[in-house]
Amino acid sequence: MLNRVRSAVAHLVSSGGTPPQRPKSPDSPSDTSTPPVASETPKSPPARPGSEVWAPPKTAETRASFSRPTFLQLSPGGLRRADDHTGRAVQSPPDTGRRLPWSTGYAEVINAGKSRHNEDQACCEVVYVESRRGVPGASREPPRNQGLCFYYWGLFDGHAGGGAAEMASRLLHRHIREQLKDLVEILQDPLPPPLCLPSTPGTPGFSDPSHMVSPQSCWSPQKEVTHESLVVGAIENAFQLMDEQMARERRGHQVEGGCCALVVVYLLGKMYVANAGDSRAIIIRNGEIIPMSREFTPETERQRLQLLGFLKPELLGSEFTHLEFPRRVQPKELGQRMLYRDQNMTGWAYKKIELEDLRFPLVCGEGKKARVMATIGVTRGLGDHNLKVCSSTLPIKPFLSCFPEVRVYDLTQYEHCPDDVLVLGTDGLWDVTNDCEVAATVDRVLSAYEPNDPSRYTALAQALVLGARGIPRDRGWRLPNNKLGSGDDISVFVIPLGGPGSYS
Amino acid sequence: MLNRVRSAVAHLVSSGGTPPQRPKSPDSPSDTSTPPVASETPKSPPARPGSEVWAPPKTAETRASFSRPTFLQLSPGGLRRADDHTGRAVQSPPDTGRRLPWSTGYAEVINAGKSRHNEDQACCEVVYVESRRGVPGASREPPRNQGLCFYYWGLFDGHAGGGAAEMASRLLHRHIREQLKDLVEILQDPLPPPLCLPSTPGTPGFSDPSHMVSPQSCWSPQKEVTHESLVVGAIENAFQLMDEQMARERRGHQVEGGCCALVVVYLLGKMYVANAGDSRAIIIRNGEIIPMSREFTPETERQRLQLLGFLKPELLGSEFTHLEFPRRVQPKELGQRMLYRDQNMTGWAYKKIELEDLRFPLVCGEGKKARVMATIGVTRGLGDHNLKVCSSTLPIKPFLSCFPEVRVYDLTQYEHCPDDVLVLGTDGLWDVTNDCEVAATVDRVLSAYEPNDPSRYTALAQALVLGARGIPRDRGWRLPNNKLGSGDDISVFVIPLGGPGSYS
Repeated sequence: MLNRVRSAVAHLVSSGGTPPQRPKSPDSPSDTSTPPVASETPKSPPARPGSEVWAPPKTAETRASFSRPTFLQLSPGGLRRADDHTGRAVQSPPDTGRRLPWSTGYAEVINAGKSRHNEDQACCEVVYVESRRGVPGASREPPRNQGLCFYYWGLFDGHAGGGAAEMASRLLHRHIREQLKDLVEILQDPLPPPLCLPSTPGTPGFSDPSHMVSPQSCWSPQKEVTHESLVVGAIENAFQLMDEQMARERRGHQVEGGCCALVVVYLLGKMYVANAGDSRAIIIRNGEIIPMSREFTPETERQRLQLLGFLKPELLGSEFTHLEFPRRVQPKELGQRMLYRDQNMTGWAYKKIELEDLRFPLVCGEGKKARVMATIGVTRGLGDHNLKVCSSTLPIKPFLSCFPEVRVYDLTQYEHCPDDVLVLGTDGLWDVTNDCEVAATVDRVLSAYEPNDPSRYTALAQALVLGARGIPRDRGWRLPNNKLGSGDDISVFVIPLGGPGSYS
Repeated sequence: MLNRVRSAVAHLVSSGGTPPQRPKSPDSPSDTSTPPVASETPKSPPARPGSEVWAPPKTAETRASFSRPTFLQLSPGGLRRADDHTGRAVQSPPDTGRRLPWSTGYAEVINAGKSRHNEDQACCEVVYVESRRGVPGASREPPRNQGLCFYYWGLFDGHAGGGAAEMASRLLHRHIREQLKDLVEILQDPLPPPLCLPSTPGTPGFSDPSHMVSPQSCWSPQKEVTHESLVVGAIENAFQLMDEQMARERRGHQVEGGCCALVVVYLLGKMYVANAGDSRAIIIRNGEIIPMSREFTPETERQRLQLLGFLKPELLGSEFTHLEFPRRVQPKELGQRMLYRDQNMTGWAYKKIELEDLRFPLVCGEGKKARVMATIGVTRGLGDHNLKVCSSTLPIKPFLSCFPEVRVYDLTQYEHCPDDVLVLGTDGLWDVTNDCEVAATVDRVLSAYEPNDPSRYTALAQALVLGARGIPRDRGWRLPNNKLGSGDDISVFVIPLGGPGSYS
């Protein structure tokens, strides 16, 4: 990701711009800003001892911008090796000891020196959701029959510092859990969700089916809302609350920069793949590629960005124009006619160049060089509350969205074999490879292992990371075809779709 | 379409609201507001004698809201029969005389009494585009080697009056022609379009390749713009200029209501299908269905509408909320928690009901009953500049977009057979049938005719209209399965894909 923010670090200032706020629903539980300790099942790695407010680790070895996922179980020496830009050793959880849930494979490698530390972060957890009805803290062992479990995988690709990615990797799943607490009974009830609930969360009777307002008692017409769309809404709101928490706590702690977030929630038979940024998720099933995300970049979100600039021109200052041109307009071209497109257009047309067209375009560049406000190459994610335009006080955050696109995959609709996997990768992977090549690697690596060998998914993740990193040759990291490998941080999850516990 | 505007006619007032304006490019040719007479090739039906400003026909038989496409060649008696809501005779161009270009099939029928006249309109033309370089009026016969021809089909589904649909059917292709005039040389030059042109249209040397600024002379990086995207841009701008003309001329003339617009432009081997509204275009090729449009309704455009309401709350007055609820919130539910979603969400979540949630939702209802501001069921199209919310002065136009989505189909990439067709239909067709049933009718009807019989496409259009209208039985128009047929205006074009002149 580090390539994607130009000069951003140099222009981080402490007084942040105010992003456009959604009207805050007053019923947002106030404690979501400080999620309590996760009630993970024993299967999951131990949770960080729960301070009520998040703070980055402070020991000498784990400075704010230099920590790796706990499931890697790195010793101080291992942590130093993982931080070595020269060797770029591929890191995976140890073969000894407890495996990740579902025998998930994971591998990562640090960048080739473009940023001080690895700004990717990852999280893999099993999260227990206790119903809001329960009185928190009344029992250390939550009553299992009242709760729900979800499996969780997250990749966070940081930019302009590692703080946001690290904070998200530690807290986003807790925000999801908080949002799901209100839904524990509703999701387990085969009846359609009630449109209306009588009281507020935390009060007795909340989300108790016996107290729900019956849909029949309301006048028609009314929309039918599915259980699935409640989970999607919970994940969407969790992303927003995570982003708001970063905004609040950025001064007290080192919440540097921002991050893309790609997370997967497995709940009640369905995989929810939520993406905000330019990481990517694909399913490879029986050799077929099923895209599970799309990337959010200045190019793919051009019209959203231009519309915002058009409707709120004050966000552009006097420095930018919301119009797009095929290249920067030059003063000597005033009065000539140049190709342009605005927020409504997908095609191009000619317009006469006026003085304000000489401003820098809000969206410019192509491919990996596309930028919003000449600064950032990704348009969704968490954090970036302090990000300003180069040599300016103009905040960029209003143009960034913290909302993910959530795609749902019903695991029960297909009988999966051990070679069917969900692959998550940061852009360090996808910059130098594509879906088809990844599918070929999946086939090649998995067929070299016994179907019931749980280490095959880690081997696959390592092969994918190695294949994108390449080997040092000719003063650079190079792929077998002699093209440059990825000099970015690379992180990959490989999730077998056989179901929880199938291969563990 | 008439179902789609509730109480709108009663609330048309003469002082319109101002829609958010795109910055008007000063180089928009001023004469596009009054497009000159079309320079159609002799193949096309005769153009209306060219007054410089559009005015609806004023004779007794052709009142503003009661005219039919000229290619139907209706006599006064035929016009009366076409206006008969009881008989609902299907209308097609006469079998004698000149056929429509490409042997295009067309059929229409009036509604079952829901509006006074048929508010659908149609246009089918061959349009000659003279280069802007040429001096208009210097010659009655434009120099053919300097121009371009395009084939054009348009369906316009009016609502709250027939004026907008009629105006669009007479003028939109002329706006497209005006936009293309600047591109005549550029589109015929195999080199990529120049990013920059030295002078303004109409002046000597404009769009003369010898005067173009060479791309090489501009500093990199620059985007490559295709010829195809210039045509798309021309069509997009033509829609906007048509809408602006309606806004300007609505007081002087009877530009009542608004209309959906679905148009097809065939130019240099490609079909450009531009849709703004809820009409639909599909290609049936070798039995396969290829969607060529999507519908723009309060449901499909919910997030765009909500975002606009959120960013510009003044457009909602104190009457509407941009939040969506599964049904109208009742005052007694204040303080309870109800499902909602905002402009960022695709899923649903619960929120505590506050006073302002009791406002009417900006978007409500489902399917054919979905509405913006409780009034209109379609979110893109032309006109509607006077449309107000029921019992209010709040304008609805700011939420409506005049911009089409343009899809491109390259006719040269596939060898088409005589049974391959592009079907265009207003919602009167699609309300009671679907893509698969239409494909089955295509197969059934075309196989009953010789492949070289040019009347087969008209027979197919008639069969599609009849199949959607049904027959009078049990106090209504009923389909063979006894379900209600469409009581709306129904209009259908069937365009054979064999290419221009193949079957004529």
